[in-house]
Amino acid sequence: MIKEKINQAVDILKEEDIDVWLTFVRESSANNDPILDLILGTNCTWQSAFVISSKGDAIAIVGSLDETNIRETGGYEVMGYVESIKTPLIEQLERLSPKKIAINYSINDYMADGLSHGMFLNLEKILDGTRFVKTLVSAEGIISKLRGRKSPEEIRRIQGAIDLTEEIFEKVSGFMKPGMTESEVATFILNLVDEAGVETSWEREMCPNVFTGPDSAGAHAAPTDRKIEKGHVLNIDFGVRKDGYCSDLQRTWYFLRDGEDEAPNEVMGPFETIRDSIALAAEKIRPGMEGREVDAIARGYITGKGYPEFPHALGHQVGRMVHDGAGLLCPEWDRYGNLPYLKIEENQVYTIEPRISIPGYGVATMEEIIIVTPEGGKFLSHPQKEIFLI
Amino acid sequence: MIKEKINQAVDILKEEDIDVWLTFVRESSANNDPILDLILGTNCTWQSAFVISSKGDAIAIVGSLDETNIRETGGYEVMGYVESIKTPLIEQLERLSPKKIAINYSINDYMADGLSHGMFLNLEKILDGTRFVKTLVSAEGIISKLRGRKSPEEIRRIQGAIDLTEEIFEKVSGFMKPGMTESEVATFILNLVDEAGVETSWEREMCPNVFTGPDSAGAHAAPTDRKIEKGHVLNIDFGVRKDGYCSDLQRTWYFLRDGEDEAPNEVMGPFETIRDSIALAAEKIRPGMEGREVDAIARGYITGKGYPEFPHALGHQVGRMVHDGAGLLCPEWDRYGNLPYLKIEENQVYTIEPRISIPGYGVATMEEIIIVTPEGGKFLSHPQKEIFLI
Repeated sequence: MIKEKINQAVDILKEEDIDVWLTFVRESSANNDPILDLILGTNCTWQSAFVISSKGDAIAIVGSLDETNIRETGGYEVMGYVESIKTPLIEQLERLSPKKIAINYSINDYMADGLSHGMFLNLEKILDGTRFVKTLVSAEGIISKLRGRKSPEEIRRIQGAIDLTEEIFEKVSGFMKPGMTESEVATFILNLVDEAGVETSWEREMCPNVFTGPDSAGAHAAPTDRKIEKGHVLNIDFGVRKDGYCSDLQRTWYFLRDGEDEAPNEVMGPFETIRDSIALAAEKIRPGMEGREVDAIARGYITGKGYPEFPHALGHQVGRMVHDGAGLLCPEWDRYGNLPYLKIEENQVYTIEPRISIPGYGVATMEEIIIVTPEGGKFLSHPQKEIFLI
Repeated sequence: MIKEKINQAVDILKEEDIDVWLTFVRESSANNDPILDLILGTNCTWQSAFVISSKGDAIAIVGSLDETNIRETGGYEVMGYVESIKTPLIEQLERLSPKKIAINYSINDYMADGLSHGMFLNLEKILDGTRFVKTLVSAEGIISKLRGRKSPEEIRRIQGAIDLTEEIFEKVSGFMKPGMTESEVATFILNLVDEAGVETSWEREMCPNVFTGPDSAGAHAAPTDRKIEKGHVLNIDFGVRKDGYCSDLQRTWYFLRDGEDEAPNEVMGPFETIRDSIALAAEKIRPGMEGREVDAIARGYITGKGYPEFPHALGHQVGRMVHDGAGLLCPEWDRYGNLPYLKIEENQVYTIEPRISIPGYGVATMEEIIIVTPEGGKFLSHPQKEIFLI
């Protein structure tokens, strides 16, 4: 996977017209640059430079004791040093002769801000007296693209997390009964997470979120002792991190009242509207569109049916992080800054998660995951077609 | 514990003649400043400022959604903001009117280098046009002292990790037999680690290190399929991280040959020399000494008995990290830079770990843990007095 991401990085450097991308770190287990997960997959101790060029070079200059470990990643031509990184680093830069060197700092994007200020000062000192000191630029554009464009191995891992989440949802369907509390349902799920030897996608106290009935918080709150009752709509928001990659899915259940053999129309209208708005957004999404355009498709479908619009973005990227940064399917609201206008790219992975509150019942919401292809969004999850009846 | 460390920080600020220490972070779960473990114990999302003053102020300026969480740490007067941190941060600085503001960057000490370069630029922008922009200095002196001086709760946690490690060593003594491999011994230990629900102090592949007989690597290598034989000296280097704090201990065993009921003199000489050199170093260590002086006491004792000196430092600090940074008991060798000359302080916690190779048998080595008091080193571990016979 490291090799896949390095190859992607080379292509992105060409697109961004940057000759060299330099990741400069030390003691990365204590002071981590989040990009190392993608382009290295291990840690280094002494000052280390990972140099990727638009011509296809991938060079690691590392302390001699780290050489073996870094070589085993399979991604780099490895050069060990003993006394100082300065000479080999400048040699490599002179050979590559870059007009621009991108380094990992960013005012706005914390995922692209892995260079510490002390290491920035060390780098300035190393480059002092060379022409390179004037060529440093932010790598935020490179990093955002590299995180967004999922490689085949990354897609396989996200798929693994989704598959496990769906298996757990199926077991939950067989477990839940009226009279149980939200917390009991959450505990059942967390036991399955532990048995599978994985982590939850976000803090365990709030993953899963379980919301039953008309009086629940509906979102962003921990499970409570509220009891499931007949006539409740219940939804669960849940995901797992497996092999370093996250899922994030929501499903909706209805608890039949005595004498009912299906959910009432007041519930089915919102349920079907959400389901169909997700299908529509997935069908229409294309590389090159802006996030706000996809958000508007689902949002407009829902308000067109006479339902209120959902008070959040339609979807976010998933990957190593459950909210994987940049590129968002969101409306043009102030708080989203420039995000509604970012271009959607092929092989980005997004959630689609509209919601409708159903007065007297609860909240209907599904969250599916798609990957962007030139022909539209391809579902990685199995979209919920029918409301689950218990 | 957060409160204990904040109180220590106030005293250190007075000693260092710095008015204000500012920790400035965002999205700390992705982009962590290692000092947050000590002074916050949780994460924050938006730009957040933790301001500690030499007068005893401890103020957290955080995004409004983080207010509750940060208040629960019990350490800070919490101020929430919605739009921008700039106004409340400058207000607090004007109130405190510092001549020097220490921030978390360091050229040399990675544990004191948690401020990202992007966040440094954000801070410069926020302070632009104020007199504070010229008052920024490195907090490395504060952070080094704060990590080193263990609070009562930190000592309690280190003690917990040591106690568990000693329990596991006792079980290992009952388990090991000639014919077993180093790897089998390591697996036995790792199962006990998992049962206890803790982590190993360093990478699991190399923790425990198990070395048996005269042909083993002796240090810094993973366990192998080498079999324990009668007549082997075996040593194990191992520790656990429990409640966030580490232990790091070594013990030595001897496998009796047929007809032996004690270890031969060639083994007992080195064993007793190590044991006594540790006792001597612990007896002599005092606050205010330099690390090199303590190293020289044990090193001199060993060479005085005619044994070769050990090829490494006598001991390092332990805490949240197994090598907890700064202050080292080490010889004046180039590779240790200024570390041999740092002053030892009360309540620092050090390992003492000399070693002697015994040709034909293996390596004898013990590693104990002491806390520095005005009366000398007080053992937190139970020092190994007799070689363990199997």
